[in-house]
Amino acid sequence: MNISPLQIERLKYAPKLPGMLRNGISEISVKEGEATTSAADQEKIQELFPNTYGKKEITFEKGANTSAAKKQVVGVILSGGQAPGGHNVVCGLYDALKATDSENVLLGFKGGPSGLLEDNYIEFTDDFIDQYRNTGGFDIIGSGRTKLETEEQFAIASEVCKKHGVTAIVIIGGDDSNTNAGVLAEYMAAHNTGVQVIGCPKTIDGDLKNEDIECSFGFDTATKTYSELIGNIQRDANSAKKYWHFIKVMGRSASHVALECALETQPSICLISEEVAAKKMSLSQIANYIADSVTARAKNGNNFGVVVIPEGVVEFVPEFSALIAEINELLAGSKADEFNALESWADKYAFIEKGLTAESMAVFATLPQAVQQQLFLERDPHGNVQVSLIESEKLFASLVADVLKERKAAGEYNGKFATLTHFFGYEGRCAFPSNFDADYCYSLGYNAFMLIQYGYNGYLSKISNLSAPADEWVAGGMPITKMMNMERRHGEDKPVIKKALVELDGAPFKYFEAHRAEWAVETCFTYPGAIQYYGPTEVCDLTTRTLALEKGLMK
Amino acid sequence: MNISPLQIERLKYAPKLPGMLRNGISEISVKEGEATTSAADQEKIQELFPNTYGKKEITFEKGANTSAAKKQVVGVILSGGQAPGGHNVVCGLYDALKATDSENVLLGFKGGPSGLLEDNYIEFTDDFIDQYRNTGGFDIIGSGRTKLETEEQFAIASEVCKKHGVTAIVIIGGDDSNTNAGVLAEYMAAHNTGVQVIGCPKTIDGDLKNEDIECSFGFDTATKTYSELIGNIQRDANSAKKYWHFIKVMGRSASHVALECALETQPSICLISEEVAAKKMSLSQIANYIADSVTARAKNGNNFGVVVIPEGVVEFVPEFSALIAEINELLAGSKADEFNALESWADKYAFIEKGLTAESMAVFATLPQAVQQQLFLERDPHGNVQVSLIESEKLFASLVADVLKERKAAGEYNGKFATLTHFFGYEGRCAFPSNFDADYCYSLGYNAFMLIQYGYNGYLSKISNLSAPADEWVAGGMPITKMMNMERRHGEDKPVIKKALVELDGAPFKYFEAHRAEWAVETCFTYPGAIQYYGPTEVCDLTTRTLALEKGLMK
Repeated sequence: MNISPLQIERLKYAPKLPGMLRNGISEISVKEGEATTSAADQEKIQELFPNTYGKKEITFEKGANTSAAKKQVVGVILSGGQAPGGHNVVCGLYDALKATDSENVLLGFKGGPSGLLEDNYIEFTDDFIDQYRNTGGFDIIGSGRTKLETEEQFAIASEVCKKHGVTAIVIIGGDDSNTNAGVLAEYMAAHNTGVQVIGCPKTIDGDLKNEDIECSFGFDTATKTYSELIGNIQRDANSAKKYWHFIKVMGRSASHVALECALETQPSICLISEEVAAKKMSLSQIANYIADSVTARAKNGNNFGVVVIPEGVVEFVPEFSALIAEINELLAGSKADEFNALESWADKYAFIEKGLTAESMAVFATLPQAVQQQLFLERDPHGNVQVSLIESEKLFASLVADVLKERKAAGEYNGKFATLTHFFGYEGRCAFPSNFDADYCYSLGYNAFMLIQYGYNGYLSKISNLSAPADEWVAGGMPITKMMNMERRHGEDKPVIKKALVELDGAPFKYFEAHRAEWAVETCFTYPGAIQYYGPTEVCDLTTRTLALEKGLMK
Repeated sequence: MNISPLQIERLKYAPKLPGMLRNGISEISVKEGEATTSAADQEKIQELFPNTYGKKEITFEKGANTSAAKKQVVGVILSGGQAPGGHNVVCGLYDALKATDSENVLLGFKGGPSGLLEDNYIEFTDDFIDQYRNTGGFDIIGSGRTKLETEEQFAIASEVCKKHGVTAIVIIGGDDSNTNAGVLAEYMAAHNTGVQVIGCPKTIDGDLKNEDIECSFGFDTATKTYSELIGNIQRDANSAKKYWHFIKVMGRSASHVALECALETQPSICLISEEVAAKKMSLSQIANYIADSVTARAKNGNNFGVVVIPEGVVEFVPEFSALIAEINELLAGSKADEFNALESWADKYAFIEKGLTAESMAVFATLPQAVQQQLFLERDPHGNVQVSLIESEKLFASLVADVLKERKAAGEYNGKFATLTHFFGYEGRCAFPSNFDADYCYSLGYNAFMLIQYGYNGYLSKISNLSAPADEWVAGGMPITKMMNMERRHGEDKPVIKKALVELDGAPFKYFEAHRAEWAVETCFTYPGAIQYYGPTEVCDLTTRTLALEKGLMK
């Protein structure tokens, strides 16, 4: 027995398509819109993408299918971190492809983009793909983090495509992967390979978002999963009334995940990295901000609470970034050997004290010893501090404890402060997709094939009006170059899709800002519970608070 | 907006009662069974419980209610750690009490047993209780860990009961709390207070279980929540194919939770503390056992897997227990000051080396430094090592890495071993109760009132035949003394309810044992997904594997 009861039931779920894609392949026509320009740096982007720049946005409509009949051999790639619904993108793509012509072929390149370069693939069949419908994970063909970005790689990719008669590649990935999809599309066009490239917007982090892409897939399911857990812990905190829980959530640099979870659960405190950066907050300011909530709640007899921390926050604290940069410098090259030769922590500490500026040493001195040691002992192959490994949930718990000790000594605080820490990330990336993500992903894949069939190249599969029922969703495509601008990356100017951070003047943050003072003092916890796939629509078709606020559906 | 959509819907759920309790209060009659004896040490238990020993088991049936009319004022207490469904016990109790006589009163003592001693209570009303139906947590009145066990406490409790005219106390708790309920019942009878005491079996740990109690409430929901998360992580492991996840799950000494999660998710490895104890396994043996799976999977190209670890496992490793005992001895009294005065870890290490036996020092030396330091630096108010704080998930990840290094040097292993660690506990204790726990708990509470109304004292509310649909459940009561035996606790012989550990010849372990060799090498992961409250009965009314196996419903 290897399949759970839920999986058995979910295999039967029929994902919902946007209305205009529901009439059968022969009844899907294209409406072309305006020619597009890139988000910024138009001249430069146009120069870099002469073959794929300035294309028109398109929308699908009900109407006679005018695409040319052509046998399609499509290759699909899952790129980067897992996000719930990836399997459904593949299923939607497969179903549209087979509905158009049963002779069409879908190849899955295994283990991410490297599968294309290594010519490592499987050919999908009904029996195989049917095991994966509406399931989580990327295990159908695996994923990987190899970046497709060099001319050499493109040449290999092109050869592999030629070998199998591949007519189109669908890349399912985040901002970087879709940037690379855009560059690959340009290459394929420039070299007259006849291979089209289509991207699909994936990431639980929610940072692939703009005026065209309302949200990336996986964000809905992942945030609902983390919110389930945060809510459960809040119930526990409110029952036992003796712990402050510090909970870090995934999301890389952006705080979309933390913010959405906060909107769903109403914790005592939620840090937002973008605000920390904008206000140039120090560790001490953040610790004091949290301690203010602890102090106020203790006055009401509530020695418990919940703090939500976005994964990337420490990198947004200017003094901490400066410290990291100094440490990287301090241990560069042979200096690391000198440091490593020192035996005791006291000797190492003296070495550090001598090497850091007074400002950075002051910051370093406030850190708990475990974090101090981690900064020096765990470094990546290039010798750099691994910021993502820093247990910032423990760091802030410790810094707040220090602040409270001072306040207690000063007679300003008289509570108890016991902490527990958590990190939620892997728990949500491979959950069974919510109905929303199951439908959205299936539609993205189905729609990607329609873009292929109509001959588009360098487009992102686009489904919009997502806060409405699926029937009212709008399917179409957008040139990837439209999302691009030039950015400095690793010392070079590169054309990239702009990463979307939390906007401090956006509706989701504004809502949070308007309520957080109350949440910090009163117990306003909300308990979302587990994702439901069946039952009342209010429960199982619930849109994210982020999207609801952005669309003005929630005040 | 403080109530989630799921909570709004769950408030409407009508929990299912056993068939014989569905006919209305006036149609519930009692059938008395045989007189009982205690589980062991009959003479001693009878001597200690002259007024409550040897009572008859009872079962409720459809028939004319023959209980005497009497105004009831019942006090209810939530004791110990949270378990999903506690609110429903209170709701069932309240509904039966009010259905019997609208003048009846339910008092909730706040913050656990201390609420009774401190006369800190609320009186339940319809409006208040209706907010908590089918919700998780114990926040309705809070919980606490004060033990009701001394004559002095009983005398106070008795006074508080007299003051409010309390006719019965319902204690919702685990094995210790129900032991205390039994002792309190005896006190109340011996002192002719007229106060009845009824217990209800609560604990997510699953260790309050015997021939009468098929399972404690909360176990179903908590294990389903942990299994959701373990399954999600397994999907992630199987997608990324680059991490071994070490996952510790709550459950105190017993491994019922870990075992149930393993049966639901089929991880590569699951440790069972009771087996570790029975086989007197060393840390090194355990590390090698896990490393065997890592090695075999690496040979198949699978450098990923999942290891489930029960919370209490290190205490079951004989050499580790011996080490802890020596450390406690080494730091007893003033010796702790001597140790604390040493500044560097090297000096402390020398002190330790001098103080431990060679055997324990050999064990100590194999531990990662973080665990070594934790053993010496974090001690409870009595100076003892806090075993529950030991991050055994990190400990085993580190020990396995050491073994693999040796194997690599010996040419026996050639894989990659990157680890991630997790601890799941607080996430599951306050989840919305599954339909099973919602029904079971409501029935336990409803039934507890029927025991009160029929004048029973020192009984446990008992619902059985739990793997069948609720309609076929059997409601009744069992004298608490029937579960008791004498045990040595803190240097004294005490009458206690026997804690149920995992039985190595029981069906759940036997099933696990028969399959684990395959799970350790092949990828047999099962993905249960989130608890469903709606939808197909196969999904939302799924009994635990443990119970299904114990009942012979699964082979």
